[in-house]
Amino acid sequence: MTRSAQYLGDRTFAVAGTEPVPPGPGEVRVDVAYTGICGTDLHIAHGAMDHRVSVPAVIGHEMSGRIAELGPGVDGWTVGDHVTVMPLSWCGQCPACLAGHRHICHRLVFIGIDAPGAMQNTWTVPAAVLVRLPADLPLDRAALIEPTAVAVHDVRRSRLRAGEHAVVVGAGPVGLLIGKVAQATGAEVLVLELDPHRREVAAGLGLSTVDPAAVDVVRHVQDWTGGAGAAVAFEVSGSAGGVGTASDVLAVRGRLVVVAIHPKPREVDLHRVFWRELELLGVRVYDRADFEEAVRLVAAEEVPADRLISRVFPLEAATEAFTALESGGVVKVLIDCGGDA
Amino acid sequence: MTRSAQYLGDRTFAVAGTEPVPPGPGEVRVDVAYTGICGTDLHIAHGAMDHRVSVPAVIGHEMSGRIAELGPGVDGWTVGDHVTVMPLSWCGQCPACLAGHRHICHRLVFIGIDAPGAMQNTWTVPAAVLVRLPADLPLDRAALIEPTAVAVHDVRRSRLRAGEHAVVVGAGPVGLLIGKVAQATGAEVLVLELDPHRREVAAGLGLSTVDPAAVDVVRHVQDWTGGAGAAVAFEVSGSAGGVGTASDVLAVRGRLVVVAIHPKPREVDLHRVFWRELELLGVRVYDRADFEEAVRLVAAEEVPADRLISRVFPLEAATEAFTALESGGVVKVLIDCGGDA
Ligand SMILES: [Zn+2]
Ligand SMILES: [Zn+2]
Ligand SMILES: [Zn+2]
Ligand SMILES: [Zn+2]
Repeated sequence: MTRSAQYLGDRTFAVAGTEPVPPGPGEVRVDVAYTGICGTDLHIAHGAMDHRVSVPAVIGHEMSGRIAELGPGVDGWTVGDHVTVMPLSWCGQCPACLAGHRHICHRLVFIGIDAPGAMQNTWTVPAAVLVRLPADLPLDRAALIEPTAVAVHDVRRSRLRAGEHAVVVGAGPVGLLIGKVAQATGAEVLVLELDPHRREVAAGLGLSTVDPAAVDVVRHVQDWTGGAGAAVAFEVSGSAGGVGTASDVLAVRGRLVVVAIHPKPREVDLHRVFWRELELLGVRVYDRADFEEAVRLVAAEEVPADRLISRVFPLEAATEAFTALESGGVVKVLIDCGGDA
Repeated sequence: MTRSAQYLGDRTFAVAGTEPVPPGPGEVRVDVAYTGICGTDLHIAHGAMDHRVSVPAVIGHEMSGRIAELGPGVDGWTVGDHVTVMPLSWCGQCPACLAGHRHICHRLVFIGIDAPGAMQNTWTVPAAVLVRLPADLPLDRAALIEPTAVAVHDVRRSRLRAGEHAVVVGAGPVGLLIGKVAQATGAEVLVLELDPHRREVAAGLGLSTVDPAAVDVVRHVQDWTGGAGAAVAFEVSGSAGGVGTASDVLAVRGRLVVVAIHPKPREVDLHRVFWRELELLGVRVYDRADFEEAVRLVAAEEVPADRLISRVFPLEAATEAFTALESGGVVKVLIDCGGDA
């Protein structure tokens, strides 16, 4: 039997036993070791994505595991291989796909939202979404590769270079990962965060932090950058104020990467955009190169995944895992899906 | 005597005679043939830039003329050479200059706003700002090179390529120039304009137009682009609605160039910026390469400068020239500065 945490609506999950899905042609069945919970999952649990998810649903897209079974016609993989999944499926035929931007396919299927996800002990997916893991990379850490790939994508799109200055607005899990990935490029990084606990976590990871409520941030960044301003600002707070701060700290030709999702339109200081020839860049998920770089960064401990994992819950305690993530004081919360037993 | 149109405040100009300014070391005196009036000049005349301009002031920065006198140490130029001026002076030492972005110098002096401009029959400027004109290019057309350089800069920054689709929101003089420069790159161009007269002018220049009040613009652009959306949108209307339209019509990875100046922050649909990985690009003035390309485009009549000149007023009628520009029904209004006599 497959054991899965089924989302039942209203922040509630229950474990159910179902028939395993045998892998069809081109598919593999993966025994899931760990699945991380991210903000999107929380959003779903709050019912905010009911237009895309119908209950009962198995969600989850930040995972690690081992190949358990190969469907017909799958080449290049062996039972036992350690893998994670790039949870995207594109149509290959829309204008975005034809232009080479398959990760922004007009009909993108995000596996774990639009299709069943990884909060189960065994999971059948197309072999095309597999990403190989080094066999010696602990599987709990490997569950952080997907959010690291998000950070890699965001930093890559910013064109951040060694020696440049980058400001990260907001030190949630994605902000911290962006900070570490940006540092790995050789850039100078400053993290702005209102919450003292999050600042402490960031500092513990070797990131410089500032409390934007206590310091004149624009002046601080001016001093830090010799009067130039920052080359890149990552808006990861999701707040109106964060958008303003991110544009205010930028140098001439600075790049503002809008990482957080802003459901409502935000005021943007287009006069400053003009005056400094700023760029504002949208970012969405990742592509395979981002995933492979994320594997490398986590394996090399340039992204300290082990120190970002705050708590691990068993599959049976999925509801509690979501509650723990919401109550704060944690960075990443994982669900032990039992597939590594 | 130098004869100049002096701005006295409250939309009023009067011709005054002053001592000519002899060119100092590295300077030249240029007899000014024509000076165009642009939106910025109109802004000044309305008193909206009193913090930068103190009356009486000689303004104007879109000009053409002939070299009348060389100061000491000026090489490479001869009396009689036809020239226009790239009206920028930078410090060379601020972070923007040191990063190679001199046209966005932190202490940029815009000649014609922050320093005396071209609405006079003879004008002394640093030789460094001169741009050479072909001797056979009529000097009235050459007065349109500066705004054409703006358009060249905007199109270049958009990375528009042949075969791509570009939408221009707003068919004022800059919008029309952007439309023609975009066409010259080999792109397909669509101009959105509410005003029927401006649409007529655009159509007369060979630009496709749509009335956004009469047509579902997003659907229209979808159909026009085979469902993809436009690669580039130029926001030249200065309106909140224009910003919205420009982002709504864009394809995945589309570039929104904010050309018009928006003094107040504007709402931007950051969810769409995320969903389609859009780019929003600020643009400011131009650099020398833009100016040289503008000379080429005007000389080759790829930008039909002659057809954009609606009226020419003598220096004595500067007040009337500004009034004519404001009353609409015109594209470019020039002042004949008499220096080509
Ligand atoms: Zn996620
Ligand atoms: Zn597609
Ligand atoms: Zn101008
Ligand atoms: Zn400078």
